[in-house]
Amino acid sequence: MNKIYNPKPETWSEILKRPTQSFNDIEETVKGIFKEIQQKGDIAVTKYTSFFDGIILDNIEVSNEEIQEAIALVSTELKQAIALAKSNIEKFHTAQKTSKIEVETIEGVNCWQEKRPIQKVGLYIPGGTAPLFSTVLMLTIPAQIAGCKEIILCSPPDKSGKINPAILYVANLCGVTKVLKVGGIQAIAGMAFGTQTIPKVYKIFGPGNQFVTVAKQFATRFGVAIDMPAGPSELLIVADDTAIPSFVASDLLSQAEHGTDSQVILVSTSKELIDVVETEINKQIEVLPRKNIAQKAIENSKLIYVENDTIAIDLINEYGPEHFIICTNKDNFYIDNIENAGSVFIGNYTPESAGDYASGTNHTLPTNGYAKNYSGVNLDSFLKSMTFQKISKIGIQKIGTAIEIMAEAEGLQAHKNAVSLRLKAIENE
Amino acid sequence: MNKIYNPKPETWSEILKRPTQSFNDIEETVKGIFKEIQQKGDIAVTKYTSFFDGIILDNIEVSNEEIQEAIALVSTELKQAIALAKSNIEKFHTAQKTSKIEVETIEGVNCWQEKRPIQKVGLYIPGGTAPLFSTVLMLTIPAQIAGCKEIILCSPPDKSGKINPAILYVANLCGVTKVLKVGGIQAIAGMAFGTQTIPKVYKIFGPGNQFVTVAKQFATRFGVAIDMPAGPSELLIVADDTAIPSFVASDLLSQAEHGTDSQVILVSTSKELIDVVETEINKQIEVLPRKNIAQKAIENSKLIYVENDTIAIDLINEYGPEHFIICTNKDNFYIDNIENAGSVFIGNYTPESAGDYASGTNHTLPTNGYAKNYSGVNLDSFLKSMTFQKISKIGIQKIGTAIEIMAEAEGLQAHKNAVSLRLKAIENE
Repeated sequence: MNKIYNPKPETWSEILKRPTQSFNDIEETVKGIFKEIQQKGDIAVTKYTSFFDGIILDNIEVSNEEIQEAIALVSTELKQAIALAKSNIEKFHTAQKTSKIEVETIEGVNCWQEKRPIQKVGLYIPGGTAPLFSTVLMLTIPAQIAGCKEIILCSPPDKSGKINPAILYVANLCGVTKVLKVGGIQAIAGMAFGTQTIPKVYKIFGPGNQFVTVAKQFATRFGVAIDMPAGPSELLIVADDTAIPSFVASDLLSQAEHGTDSQVILVSTSKELIDVVETEINKQIEVLPRKNIAQKAIENSKLIYVENDTIAIDLINEYGPEHFIICTNKDNFYIDNIENAGSVFIGNYTPESAGDYASGTNHTLPTNGYAKNYSGVNLDSFLKSMTFQKISKIGIQKIGTAIEIMAEAEGLQAHKNAVSLRLKAIENE
Repeated sequence: MNKIYNPKPETWSEILKRPTQSFNDIEETVKGIFKEIQQKGDIAVTKYTSFFDGIILDNIEVSNEEIQEAIALVSTELKQAIALAKSNIEKFHTAQKTSKIEVETIEGVNCWQEKRPIQKVGLYIPGGTAPLFSTVLMLTIPAQIAGCKEIILCSPPDKSGKINPAILYVANLCGVTKVLKVGGIQAIAGMAFGTQTIPKVYKIFGPGNQFVTVAKQFATRFGVAIDMPAGPSELLIVADDTAIPSFVASDLLSQAEHGTDSQVILVSTSKELIDVVETEINKQIEVLPRKNIAQKAIENSKLIYVENDTIAIDLINEYGPEHFIICTNKDNFYIDNIENAGSVFIGNYTPESAGDYASGTNHTLPTNGYAKNYSGVNLDSFLKSMTFQKISKIGIQKIGTAIEIMAEAEGLQAHKNAVSLRLKAIENE
């Protein structure tokens, strides 16, 4: 592990650098597959599913029989756990509903803002070793609360042509309209253009590897919105002597096991804590099934000592962590002053895994410094805000002259004319 | 004008097609300029300002003297009009403030959501024939209410090296931190990377021509967010016999004068209205200073007759207009059922120009069908939402088992372990 003592602010950006990804090589591949799917639809989807997932499927749509089979396969224990998580996520996201905002800005000028659902959304759930049914919860629940009409879910089939039962179970539980066995670039392209089987959607959500990430960003050229650009998951912990080192170590490791490119950073005002956490990590890592992955991520991790909390928060805000754990005797200082973070975990009994699964907050969060300019997924991610205005005769008389003057100054005579005609009509009544 | 009667739903997408833009040619130019600005900073900015704007500037930062000069140049009349618009825009955007949302999702598990400002934002204001000082109001006011620390404004200099005084006046009035005389691709690249003079920002807002649009979209590859993709401005009016044809014509023309590629559509359940509006347009257009521009846009406009309001609203939702005017005897039907629109104008005395300048709503809106998945600019555009959670010992006992089971099912043992360690510690107390 890299221990760094009192780094100077001018070195922070170098120390806090994320692993760089080169998009250029991947983009050519993405471009090619997009073009083919746009032109050939399902035929191209089948071709790339065969190529990347090693299976030729007659029908990529998950049938009702497969859903029923999945429901039977998920254990009662897991179903109960999912029910608890679902309940908490629902409570937190339902609370995010906002009502119509209405203002009479000046006599006779009524303006209001309302949020209405994005009608068609597409959720992408990766396949691979970890079946992320928790991400299905995190995306379907706010989509349902928002009132999205069509909720499409794409996830790659395994070698036997199946999707993990827990993913299907949650998809069915949370109102997904259609589940499709299609992954990677071809899934994103399919949802961007629509094919004979895959519905075209207006916004695409969900995590994925670098191919999916580039494909999502590429899809925005074709009128589709995306939740956010994605990068490897990351955790920054600020801890002092009041933190429990074994807990801190376990949190760092839970992040490290995500992938070899995971980012794990400890910032502390205590050199002792840094040393004890290091020892704890070395102990705990030994028994992990994903030890090899965690080991590599831990090798790139940083344990950073700084002299005081002010320096610590400046450094943390420069980094803008996806997950931010605070275990100090000055928790409120950090809560008040954190400017850039996706989700914040406070105190010794709030591990990151609580937010990953069951506290109620969303786990689809901005990585790679995007906490500086993007929200994590929340209810609003599935809505768009629209404005309305209704102006009375008195209202247009109140603001008409100002509009005429401003339109004239911008050289837009027809804009002025639309008001002048109305003002004259009122005068002549 | 194209009059279309009872078009079949399967023809709507063809009828409602926007002018297509080809990004591919432009993207090479954008890529090249971005690379040069990333490498050479201000030197490259000066080079491209000389090349595109025809002026070599020693200093691209607008000085305090220039601001004072601009303040003196703006007429009292225009200042008063701006003050009225500012007041209404402030009222409507201040009302959009939301408070902390806090939920105890289960005993001992406290979750909350807070919105915090995006620290550094960059606003782009085009130069050219129409000095869009109104857009400065629309972007700076919510940025100030949100509490953004740095508000940078870029706008291209004219041939004498100046920015229009009304733009400088509003920038100064509304708390812009720094105004820079730089336009086009070089401005967007400058704000994306930062140069010696142009600060790097986290999010870029504002309209622009197709070069600016492609540059903004390209900037998202470098960690910058943007307000939304932009296209030519557009207006759809639904009107019946209760509408006043001369008003309808004036609104269609106010949209048409924006540019030859502006989109202007009238949908009506009255053939008579369509005919009278057509006559009115031909009359009103004669006296417009921007007649040539409006004429071309009007040639491509569509006057669509449909049999009833249900068909009308379906067609309108398929289009997703940026601006949507409702002048019918069933206004509430359209208000309730509009799913996709940027800003909605209701009744005979609510011209689009009211929202463009002074009603209080924002005029930076999704075009090109993006009303299906993007909000117009609003207070939230300058904030990002962050989540927080604080879990007590009781709380982790309530949700710990569920987390352990779910983490195990996803194959993430270290996630489980972070909880197990804490549960054991509580048991052993």
